[in-house]
Amino acid sequence: MDAYRVGSSPNVRRHRGEVSRGEREARLGQRGCVLWLTGLSGSGKSTVAYAAERALHDAGREVVVLDGDNVRHGLNCNLGFAPEDREENVRRLGEVAKLFAEQGVIALVSLISPYRGDRDKVRARLGEGEFVEVFMKIPLEVCEERDPKGLYKAVRAGKIKGFTGVDAPYEEPLEPEITVTAQNESGERTSVEDMATQIVQYLGSKGYLHSPVRPGEWIKTD
Amino acid sequence: MDAYRVGSSPNVRRHRGEVSRGEREARLGQRGCVLWLTGLSGSGKSTVAYAAERALHDAGREVVVLDGDNVRHGLNCNLGFAPEDREENVRRLGEVAKLFAEQGVIALVSLISPYRGDRDKVRARLGEGEFVEVFMKIPLEVCEERDPKGLYKAVRAGKIKGFTGVDAPYEEPLEPEITVTAQNESGERTSVEDMATQIVQYLGSKGYLHSPVRPGEWIKTD
Repeated sequence: MDAYRVGSSPNVRRHRGEVSRGEREARLGQRGCVLWLTGLSGSGKSTVAYAAERALHDAGREVVVLDGDNVRHGLNCNLGFAPEDREENVRRLGEVAKLFAEQGVIALVSLISPYRGDRDKVRARLGEGEFVEVFMKIPLEVCEERDPKGLYKAVRAGKIKGFTGVDAPYEEPLEPEITVTAQNESGERTSVEDMATQIVQYLGSKGYLHSPVRPGEWIKTD
Repeated sequence: MDAYRVGSSPNVRRHRGEVSRGEREARLGQRGCVLWLTGLSGSGKSTVAYAAERALHDAGREVVVLDGDNVRHGLNCNLGFAPEDREENVRRLGEVAKLFAEQGVIALVSLISPYRGDRDKVRARLGEGEFVEVFMKIPLEVCEERDPKGLYKAVRAGKIKGFTGVDAPYEEPLEPEITVTAQNESGERTSVEDMATQIVQYLGSKGYLHSPVRPGEWIKTD
């Protein structure tokens, strides 16, 4: 036996944490989950994620933003943009988000994640209702007009190849839990605040924020 | 320019989170940090980490255990035990622990992490005082006598090669913040509870638990 050459070695056992997820969630007064914001570059994923984070934090919730760009400076700094690297990028972010969700935290992930299959793999790693896909359904024209990082301009000038939505595919979610659009039903432009509110209201209506924060009841202070 | 082939592409920007670390830590009444438990197999890293987690949780603290064995079933399931894989294993766990510390959480990492250089790289990624090295200084004979997973038995039977502390190196920390020993100064066996208490007391004395949990003061409830 040379168990030292295999990743899922029989020598590697799972330890059960001493503090259960239920205990954590009861104390936090919320259900841990992963809100996965997917969409084109410039669709507002990070902006909306941070706005939702602020709203949830101010409401006394434990929340984290895992921003694909930021994580590429740390955990995923050894990954490029080739298809297999993009797949691994999505996988790792999914696993980290899962760790936060298991702590009872609401994890907002902001990542283009253009391939349906990659996103569905993350969903499959999580329990029922723990993966909430948020489709930033913003037309390419709108994203390109915004162009916050000047990337579309560089693409059109031929300086970037293989850009999602232009000359690389973006596979739209088939049944996202939440669809965020650039305009509301009355044709008015949707604000960042509106988009963040849509996410927070989803969590509230679906029971993720299952008990109000009642200090003294759920915090053990002795 | 073909920015799509490099990991640290100039197109990848850092976003500043809307909720600051200071805000999180003020509300949690604690300072986020990484407690890195390193030591031989069977030295009690995970057992002590979970005992410290329980004590901290019961004291109203936000705490997570990142167990090297568990993470190999998720985030690090695509890594083996070759030197470069072990190094990447340590690096990824360090980055995930950093993400938790940035949330103001006390992250207990349980990982053999035999190479000083790998551990020091994690330390270098964290700020002053954020990396607390906990050396489980338990003699090989004690670990081998315990042998909770039967690994030493397999090693001695020649079924496992390259085992840390036997026929692969373990580089002891030079200046660990905390050293946990099998016996106290009076020569009495140290219990798991004593070891966990040592860690919690370190945090208390060094100001990581900087304000008591005072519900109503640090939780915004409106």
